[in-house]
Amino acid sequence: MQTLAASGVELCLANPGTSEMHFVAALDRIPGVRCVLGLFEGVVTGAADAYYRMAGKPAATLLHLGPGLGNGLANLHNAAKARSGVVNIVGDHALAHARHESPLKSDAAGIAASVSAWVRSSQSAAEVGQDAAAAIAATRDGALGRIATLLLPADTAWGAGGRAAVAPPAPPPGFDRAAVPMVARRLRELGPRALLLLGHGGSASEAAQRLAAAIAAKTGCRVLAEFYNARMPGGRGRPGIERLPYAIDAAVARLAEAELLVLAGAADPIGFFGYPGKPSQLKRAGAALQTLAEAHEDVPAALQALADELGARPVPLDAVPALPVVPEGRIDARSVAAAVAVTLPEHAVVIDEGITAGRELATTMGGAAPHDWLMVMGGAIGWGLPGAVGAALGAPGRPVLALEGDGSAMYTLQALWTMARESLPVTVLVFANRSYRILQGELQGVGATLAGPRAASMLSLESPALDWTALARGQGVPAQRVQTAQDLAAALRSGFAGRGPYLVEAVLQA
Amino acid sequence: MQTLAASGVELCLANPGTSEMHFVAALDRIPGVRCVLGLFEGVVTGAADAYYRMAGKPAATLLHLGPGLGNGLANLHNAAKARSGVVNIVGDHALAHARHESPLKSDAAGIAASVSAWVRSSQSAAEVGQDAAAAIAATRDGALGRIATLLLPADTAWGAGGRAAVAPPAPPPGFDRAAVPMVARRLRELGPRALLLLGHGGSASEAAQRLAAAIAAKTGCRVLAEFYNARMPGGRGRPGIERLPYAIDAAVARLAEAELLVLAGAADPIGFFGYPGKPSQLKRAGAALQTLAEAHEDVPAALQALADELGARPVPLDAVPALPVVPEGRIDARSVAAAVAVTLPEHAVVIDEGITAGRELATTMGGAAPHDWLMVMGGAIGWGLPGAVGAALGAPGRPVLALEGDGSAMYTLQALWTMARESLPVTVLVFANRSYRILQGELQGVGATLAGPRAASMLSLESPALDWTALARGQGVPAQRVQTAQDLAAALRSGFAGRGPYLVEAVLQA
Repeated sequence: MQTLAASGVELCLANPGTSEMHFVAALDRIPGVRCVLGLFEGVVTGAADAYYRMAGKPAATLLHLGPGLGNGLANLHNAAKARSGVVNIVGDHALAHARHESPLKSDAAGIAASVSAWVRSSQSAAEVGQDAAAAIAATRDGALGRIATLLLPADTAWGAGGRAAVAPPAPPPGFDRAAVPMVARRLRELGPRALLLLGHGGSASEAAQRLAAAIAAKTGCRVLAEFYNARMPGGRGRPGIERLPYAIDAAVARLAEAELLVLAGAADPIGFFGYPGKPSQLKRAGAALQTLAEAHEDVPAALQALADELGARPVPLDAVPALPVVPEGRIDARSVAAAVAVTLPEHAVVIDEGITAGRELATTMGGAAPHDWLMVMGGAIGWGLPGAVGAALGAPGRPVLALEGDGSAMYTLQALWTMARESLPVTVLVFANRSYRILQGELQGVGATLAGPRAASMLSLESPALDWTALARGQGVPAQRVQTAQDLAAALRSGFAGRGPYLVEAVLQA
Repeated sequence: MQTLAASGVELCLANPGTSEMHFVAALDRIPGVRCVLGLFEGVVTGAADAYYRMAGKPAATLLHLGPGLGNGLANLHNAAKARSGVVNIVGDHALAHARHESPLKSDAAGIAASVSAWVRSSQSAAEVGQDAAAAIAATRDGALGRIATLLLPADTAWGAGGRAAVAPPAPPPGFDRAAVPMVARRLRELGPRALLLLGHGGSASEAAQRLAAAIAAKTGCRVLAEFYNARMPGGRGRPGIERLPYAIDAAVARLAEAELLVLAGAADPIGFFGYPGKPSQLKRAGAALQTLAEAHEDVPAALQALADELGARPVPLDAVPALPVVPEGRIDARSVAAAVAVTLPEHAVVIDEGITAGRELATTMGGAAPHDWLMVMGGAIGWGLPGAVGAALGAPGRPVLALEGDGSAMYTLQALWTMARESLPVTVLVFANRSYRILQGELQGVGATLAGPRAASMLSLESPALDWTALARGQGVPAQRVQTAQDLAAALRSGFAGRGPYLVEAVLQA
């Protein structure tokens, strides 16, 4: 605990058990680490992911043996894909006890390996401090983060000889300047037949986005961000970088004219799923890839160097798109997009796990108040509500809006309790379409057809319909159900006006 | 799907995604497999565990890539420790797509290895049938079950050449007759200084329990069951086999006079956790172990052979313990134990994840109606509500009572929705002590002390208090909160009288 505090780890997200009791007991003796309780481990790990994206430094988790790690695994997968740094601490059986077969004996190291860049099991109390410092250092990979899992056998907490350590400061990321003149030459040559693709670091800051816009204006190249971005500023006064579409056909069409993809923190674009008769690789056949800077490098500095090389100067932004008018009547994708854009407060953080219902929002958010947009990066659902917890903890004072499907919100609904417990300013908007709507589309994509009622029932969340206002109130979160777009906008305003969490269940018409 | 149906797998517990859509689409074309939806993967895997224990054969799961498997991992851990058979089917990316980095790319095989006895990834549609048959066969280990994980890349569902197969019939378990005369001799020699310890197969049937009682009456040996039993008949008309205590000191005291432990499906007794200054192994130092039959062998047949060897005859049961009277006034461990024992209907299945509040029940259940008692076998909490789903599906027509702590029930509360959806006759009793009460005891056990309010808050579920009636109603389950023992008994009777699920929140006084 002293090592965490001394190394700048200020938050511990915990779902502890017996083997972590000394850690819990230390909370009152050692200042500097805030501990927040989650009632399910997926809350803990999803919050750690979003916390890193907003705070720019890792939180610690506190989990209980292999099964606790298992419960947190899906959101650790998301965090690993987001390249978020997490000091993932897992209590384990005392070393002598682990020799025997017992109910909770488990292969925590094996489970951790699937999502961790670094795994170590401390072997004595004397080593815990230095191991924790090594774990913190291992969460750093240049400009990106990684997951470091430290297993703490119970006896390393009650043994003698413990000494605190301090993780070394993180080395600043660099980039390869040799690439800059070559990229500049190719962009000048190809103009609109080149595409500057922004990923980590390229899409994550307003400054980097403005540099990309300047480079495009100077060379005529096009600019896109990847479909998934760990953090992307948007709204009024930002360049409004377009994202690559999710759907394979649309993405392929969008890339069809690009003979060269210049990667600024991005990867060779790949579809989310493979589908029969459709490509996995989205770029045009034979198109070239040229790397300006890799994701772990200093992508904004590389973009600045490229702009300097090209003599590209800041360009005025396009006119701010007009805010839509919230329509009367029923709630559908368009009226949701309008209501969110109109009501979003300044400098909100938007957590996007809205799945099908959220995709329309990209069209209206350019006119909304400036905000940061965070997406689930590993495709594992159940990230959104925990992510909202982490974003609120990582960006104190900023309002958070979580966009959730009713299906996806169910995976980790326990996050609502932590929001209430910590009075986090999170407004949760649940799109109650009462189905796994995304799967109804995916079913067609893979060439399967719904032959009858039994298959259809597997994609339906009717019978019984979930009552999200009850699920929220049961965890201490005030809530409201709305059926019209005007009521939705009013409910969102209520949520944003409060100091704590608020849940809005928007019943979507089919 | 045809292979499952032809091999006797009648239930598929599913939380499907895109890569499993053909499987879902097949539900209406191929009869013989009932598909039940869970809104979280831990519901699916916990239900599969308890289903096996009641139905005596495996269910299939249907999970979505590594993260879906991760969400189901804790209850697969429990199922593995329970030695329940599960055909664990995990959809994965199409083989060509898995070559590329993508958000959902994950090490599903690596994650599965931690809990599976058998893992295979099908490589073409032509192999899926025979691979599924091999998976079903791999779930069998004599009298016990195992977890077999079959990974199905998406293209194995849309490729050509699929052919159904049939798993071979399970070979019947045997046992080593050579051990019987040696065990008989030692029991005769040692009398009360010998202990017959019942585990899998030894505690799981009334017939085996009666044989153990007869052997004890003949030789003077003592009989105990392990603390954790996958399934244990109890109540009026059953021998009332005592279980080894959970607490280390009590267990050690209980075993202090045994110079020999004869294992009938049991293992060398080990404590749940290791504690400073306390042993992991519970038997007296120097005590001998002698195996009558291992857990995967035919333990009842071995007990029968031993009884025959000894000339032990069935003994009359002890007088039925008087049913307690439900007291007036507040709800505490004693009044809960009375209310449950008095109201339990005939042939109920009791799911025990009551943690602290449930331990008192052992003292009253001997007088209750005949029932089966199922415990979480791997120590991973979040098993109880899913287990109740599986028990109801595996024992149609029998009422189910789930004993839950408010802390433990939160891990997989999504199971309530499946209970409502399928109209399962499950009465859920939530002990609302509003704390991780078990950890308050464990804290002392490991020698840690609560130094102040920050540590104490990590073990408290107050602020806000969970409203379990709202959490149940939000998922379509009727519910009632009770504050007195008399109201508790009445509420349980209401639950047992209904056809579908019912939740009773019992507010415990500190």
